[in-house]
Amino acid sequence: MAEKITPRSTDYSQWYIDIVTNAKLADYSPVKGCMVIRPRGYALWENIQKVMDAKFKATGHSNAYFPLLIPESFLKKEAEHVEGFSPELAVVTIAGGEKLEEPLVIRPTSETIIWSMYKKWIQSYRDLPLLINQWANVVRWEKRTRLFLRTTEFLWQEGHTAHATSAEAHEETLKMLQVYKSFVEEYMAIPILDGEKTASEKFAGAVTTYSIEAMMQDRKALQAGTSHDLGQNFAKAFDVTFQTKEGTLDHVWATSWGTSTRLIGALIMTHSDDKGLVVPPKLAPTEAVVIPIFRKDNVAEVSAYAKAIGDELRAAGLKVETDLDETASSGWKFAEWEMVGVPVRIEAGPKDMEKNQAVLVRRDTGEKLFVAREEIPAKVKELLEAIQKNLFERALKNRQDNTFQLDSWADFVKLMEGDGGFVEAAWCGSAQCEAEVKEATKATIRNLPFALKDKPVNKPCLKCGAPGQHWAVWAKSY
Amino acid sequence: MAEKITPRSTDYSQWYIDIVTNAKLADYSPVKGCMVIRPRGYALWENIQKVMDAKFKATGHSNAYFPLLIPESFLKKEAEHVEGFSPELAVVTIAGGEKLEEPLVIRPTSETIIWSMYKKWIQSYRDLPLLINQWANVVRWEKRTRLFLRTTEFLWQEGHTAHATSAEAHEETLKMLQVYKSFVEEYMAIPILDGEKTASEKFAGAVTTYSIEAMMQDRKALQAGTSHDLGQNFAKAFDVTFQTKEGTLDHVWATSWGTSTRLIGALIMTHSDDKGLVVPPKLAPTEAVVIPIFRKDNVAEVSAYAKAIGDELRAAGLKVETDLDETASSGWKFAEWEMVGVPVRIEAGPKDMEKNQAVLVRRDTGEKLFVAREEIPAKVKELLEAIQKNLFERALKNRQDNTFQLDSWADFVKLMEGDGGFVEAAWCGSAQCEAEVKEATKATIRNLPFALKDKPVNKPCLKCGAPGQHWAVWAKSY
Repeated sequence: MAEKITPRSTDYSQWYIDIVTNAKLADYSPVKGCMVIRPRGYALWENIQKVMDAKFKATGHSNAYFPLLIPESFLKKEAEHVEGFSPELAVVTIAGGEKLEEPLVIRPTSETIIWSMYKKWIQSYRDLPLLINQWANVVRWEKRTRLFLRTTEFLWQEGHTAHATSAEAHEETLKMLQVYKSFVEEYMAIPILDGEKTASEKFAGAVTTYSIEAMMQDRKALQAGTSHDLGQNFAKAFDVTFQTKEGTLDHVWATSWGTSTRLIGALIMTHSDDKGLVVPPKLAPTEAVVIPIFRKDNVAEVSAYAKAIGDELRAAGLKVETDLDETASSGWKFAEWEMVGVPVRIEAGPKDMEKNQAVLVRRDTGEKLFVAREEIPAKVKELLEAIQKNLFERALKNRQDNTFQLDSWADFVKLMEGDGGFVEAAWCGSAQCEAEVKEATKATIRNLPFALKDKPVNKPCLKCGAPGQHWAVWAKSY
Repeated sequence: MAEKITPRSTDYSQWYIDIVTNAKLADYSPVKGCMVIRPRGYALWENIQKVMDAKFKATGHSNAYFPLLIPESFLKKEAEHVEGFSPELAVVTIAGGEKLEEPLVIRPTSETIIWSMYKKWIQSYRDLPLLINQWANVVRWEKRTRLFLRTTEFLWQEGHTAHATSAEAHEETLKMLQVYKSFVEEYMAIPILDGEKTASEKFAGAVTTYSIEAMMQDRKALQAGTSHDLGQNFAKAFDVTFQTKEGTLDHVWATSWGTSTRLIGALIMTHSDDKGLVVPPKLAPTEAVVIPIFRKDNVAEVSAYAKAIGDELRAAGLKVETDLDETASSGWKFAEWEMVGVPVRIEAGPKDMEKNQAVLVRRDTGEKLFVAREEIPAKVKELLEAIQKNLFERALKNRQDNTFQLDSWADFVKLMEGDGGFVEAAWCGSAQCEAEVKEATKATIRNLPFALKDKPVNKPCLKCGAPGQHWAVWAKSY
């Protein structure tokens, strides 16, 4: 466990992999590009699922489950959709010892199979809205993979809703983006830039895609979730019509939205440091760990003292582990629990026992506090809130310090060749400019932020100098 | 919704399908043998998962996630395993637009991929026991499928544990079987026959398989869960050794255990009736429904009265829906809510409003009770407990009434040709007798029940007349 982590300053990519593997969050599998999510990583996913699932239900959605395998022909029914996903498909051609008449693809996303069912279930406006979410695995055959951030198979949730009007579908698309944003900000402590994707970056089959984007410590962007207004594209592809209140027949309006185990990658890259993982308290499987500091002559007493403190914290409703292992040194344990990102460490040694106190250490700042025993539970709760708040503020400061308003192409290139960051700049609206910027700098438009939507575009396009049409945020990304 | 259900007496199989589809629990998908689990069905699965997951964690297990796709060669490493699963595999041969060098199979179960990882993770006795569970989808290409009971893809949990000794692995195998049994009896209200599978019926790759078996209303058996003592078979196949406390090297001892969405089929077939689904209250997504009985002149008042009762029940912590739809008749609503299996119906009409009361109707017995308003929440809770108890007792009585001690082969054949049931009979221990019985009657040994283990075997083998070695329970099964 206490293996060395490559410092961020030396090699940010290696630092990330070191944390994922040394904190035992995930491991490489024998199948190319597929990862194993280990218990400590899966516990984070379970906590993410629990909160998000409650938010989905509170907004009227139900969970369901659709088949993993999709007839190949289904994907072809929506022209953009098949073009977008074809290169990434895993295809089952043999089953039960026989060659299949029609190959089946493993779902890369479920719009097609779901809309083939919605056709059966929707006849009238009374069947709408239909608000369904699915927690599932999907497979997209990626060439370059990285644990959590981009893997051939990943776990996710995908919402698929059907509505009677375009306006209602649009409202749903934006509502779910805000559900994502509030979850990521409040629970994951990651500040979010929400906005609209450009046509070149939208989901294959969507009318409009919205995204939530976050800045990592290396100033690259990470797309943490997307919400799509699908218009009538899938309803038309699968011929899903309904009788309106007025008795006419119309195609149904659709949305879909998703977040994945990629969120765990975002969490790691936003908050962790050279000592290991840092977990926002609201998602921490273990909120605090009690570590006794033994002297040879008092192992039993100190152990009992530490155990009592742990019991008191659990009685106060906190998720606490007590590390009473007598064979490991305190220093080794400190490093181990820092590695796995437990927010608060509680040290209890012989002197603390004498004084009926303990030493509380914050994972985020390393700050130490001497706290009287009866005040420990309240103080730990206070620290957990403070850490949650600090992580968000630290991440927000990183983003603010590294977001630039630029209008010079030369400055932009220089920035992207150097430290990088988010650049707010005017864009003429042409896909060609986007492509040229990407070619030259690897930077893309992350989104057209809602926050800048009402700000007059008084600058020329960053790339071509034509009149600006939108404010865009550009960055290199994961 | 209120479509007609085929009575059990007319066609039991069709009755089952009618309930699954009319109660909107599941639907057929465009992919052969794969089902769609609809929100009402998935809500049952979520409730099952929630309780079982807590039981797994309480017994020290953590969740993790392993890849969906397994290199074909892995399955071949355990001889019995590949023989058992080969005919059922779905095989990915193309991915990312290219033919794969080695085909990948979609997991039919995860022993092989998991043990390939355990090899990396286990070095010493200090790494043991390793207690991991996975909630996942699996695919087994079945020729004959039936919604929930046998589908090409299904959802399940699979526990995979590694231990330092044979005794510890064996203890784990039996412990998890009891976790299953207590869950199914206490929550699903289904009485369980637990025992050991014969060699012909054990899991492909196990040393010993134990099962929990339940009797359906048509007197057929349904295997509701299995727990396997895998000995060192998978550790040897994947060369997983560990250093013992004594410093020697030994292969690791293993268990695996699983239950699936099949449990939902068992729930439906055990408790439901000709009016529709009957759900045990402890797993009911909705515990009670309030239905106002309108007269034309007082819709608003009665609606408000019903709504108030619903609110009071929710305030008392109950999961309650209020069906205020003014366009449907009360009779239609009664049938609809009976169809979906809500345990308690609460009728509130003008007279009830006058008397400040309501009529409570039990889903299981149809019994009606007039209850004063302030007593409704307590009475509903009391009824939920009574229904849970009654469902279990009713199912137990069905099993008791249809379990027979037989030693005449002629009587056995007659019973299996007629109404069927569970038969407790002596067995000589030979696989040939099992095969002959199956060939002649379709009945198999469900298991060698623990309850009969210590009873002296004082009868000859049901089939061949040789001295009995074990008490076995025989039945036709799903």
